[in-house]
Amino acid sequence: MEAVNRSDIEKQINQKAREIEQIITKYLPKEEGYQKTVIEAMHYSVLAGGKRLRPMLMQETYRMCGGRGSVVEPFMAAMEMIHTYSLVHDDLPAMDNDEYRRGRKTTHIVYGEGMAVLAGDALLNYAFETAMKAFDSCKVDDIPLTERYMAVAQALSVLAKKAGIYGMIGGQTADIEAENSEAVNEEQLLFIHKHKTAALIEASMMVGAILAGASEETVKQMEKCAGNIGIAFQIQDDILDITGDTQTLGKAVGSDEKNHKQTYVTLRGMEQAAKEVEALSKEAVSILKNCTGDSTFLENLTEYLIDRNK
Amino acid sequence: MEAVNRSDIEKQINQKAREIEQIITKYLPKEEGYQKTVIEAMHYSVLAGGKRLRPMLMQETYRMCGGRGSVVEPFMAAMEMIHTYSLVHDDLPAMDNDEYRRGRKTTHIVYGEGMAVLAGDALLNYAFETAMKAFDSCKVDDIPLTERYMAVAQALSVLAKKAGIYGMIGGQTADIEAENSEAVNEEQLLFIHKHKTAALIEASMMVGAILAGASEETVKQMEKCAGNIGIAFQIQDDILDITGDTQTLGKAVGSDEKNHKQTYVTLRGMEQAAKEVEALSKEAVSILKNCTGDSTFLENLTEYLIDRNK
Repeated sequence: MEAVNRSDIEKQINQKAREIEQIITKYLPKEEGYQKTVIEAMHYSVLAGGKRLRPMLMQETYRMCGGRGSVVEPFMAAMEMIHTYSLVHDDLPAMDNDEYRRGRKTTHIVYGEGMAVLAGDALLNYAFETAMKAFDSCKVDDIPLTERYMAVAQALSVLAKKAGIYGMIGGQTADIEAENSEAVNEEQLLFIHKHKTAALIEASMMVGAILAGASEETVKQMEKCAGNIGIAFQIQDDILDITGDTQTLGKAVGSDEKNHKQTYVTLRGMEQAAKEVEALSKEAVSILKNCTGDSTFLENLTEYLIDRNK
Repeated sequence: MEAVNRSDIEKQINQKAREIEQIITKYLPKEEGYQKTVIEAMHYSVLAGGKRLRPMLMQETYRMCGGRGSVVEPFMAAMEMIHTYSLVHDDLPAMDNDEYRRGRKTTHIVYGEGMAVLAGDALLNYAFETAMKAFDSCKVDDIPLTERYMAVAQALSVLAKKAGIYGMIGGQTADIEAENSEAVNEEQLLFIHKHKTAALIEASMMVGAILAGASEETVKQMEKCAGNIGIAFQIQDDILDITGDTQTLGKAVGSDEKNHKQTYVTLRGMEQAAKEVEALSKEAVSILKNCTGDSTFLENLTEYLIDRNK
């Protein structure tokens, strides 16, 4: 692999993010009817910007595994809707009570708390409605293809599991409880990272592979790779909370210390944390290199995400 | 049809409700792991009692349409989880702010607001995880059956649509907005009833028919029948709010007038409302009578639900 300039990668990522945003927008419901307000709140929260990392990983894994066609698109939109609903509910006064996200007012500040609860519910529900649209592409010339039905059904199940109590919601539950407890041990912390942060990344890469018709073994490898990326990303976040500067990060640093929040860094020390990030990242890249398809972009993306200063 | 005693019907309904409760309980996740608290909150809210009307309508429609076997069971559990999550979120301080439901403390009073938001999310997500388990029964002796995959996929899509912005959530949105507005017209009110109350009842009967392999025409008839039941049930609720007595109903009457809430009765008058309930109910029963299978219980259930004094 040729060494690629970091700013070149960034340009590629931003270009892809814009393309993905068009796909997501296409799948959002029209802002009309008596339910117009909740749909406006859905648009407001989904179109708040961001790197579109999860759908990007899904699309690129799909391509790497030989996937062609548009069956992955409704799943990409669904993934971003699930990620967004989790932020809308996380920001609520009953949860993190955040008034701003990415420099914009959060959904409940603009639309009110009741409507924000509903908009989050609507996004989660509409994510499944959207992903189920992939069933429409399971017929060719009106002949139903059992294999495709099975692949879409499997992808749906993975999406649902990784978003739920055995995935992201499980991690959020453990996180809320950790905040209310005196001490957090390493096992708990890894559970939180693996579920709250890594689960949707795992689902993204697994769904991409499944829809491309990859083998069970490849799907497993993608789960492992994505798990490493997710945990490394999270530990790097904790490191930057100590070593980063506010201007580069665009957010306050030292918040973990201020909130007496236990992190991998406070538990194991900075040196060990940095080593762990490197090991996880290396393993992720090595899994990608072992794949049959062209993994160049996914490798670059992985390194870009983990080896960052913001 | 023989005339059946109202208390005999009630006994039958209660017996069936207990059987359905066992099915639902079987599909609830185990209360263990770091996510134990959110799962406890899920159990607490789902197992709060109730007539289990929606899964009952689903199971009976499935039977009437010739359905055998257990493919309907995960969908019955999923339906009750969706109904329950909507109550948990409705009861939140940001929504209706209710501290009691059926004589028990509401979920956010027991588990806190943050955990109640999460428990609602978890129930909605787990509903889809649960319904997707029906895909497991799409293979016979390991041979995948395309027709069954298609039926389960269609049932999932109906469930998702009727629960979302074009169903229940759409109705909740319109309801919140109606509460904040001076005047509500009849079109708006019918939209609210049809979506907030009737949509999940429609989904219940449609899913039952689809999973039994009923024709498209029968599925449409079930949607119409269920829509009538849902709207008649709601208008009857508004009538009882005026004519009922607190002791029989087990809740305060006159609350609509006190809250200056527009209802079908305030818009069209008591006589017209009563006529409407009777017409809707008659049409529902007549649709059931036209079905090929044995519709006796469903007819009795319909009349029981609508012709009530509590």
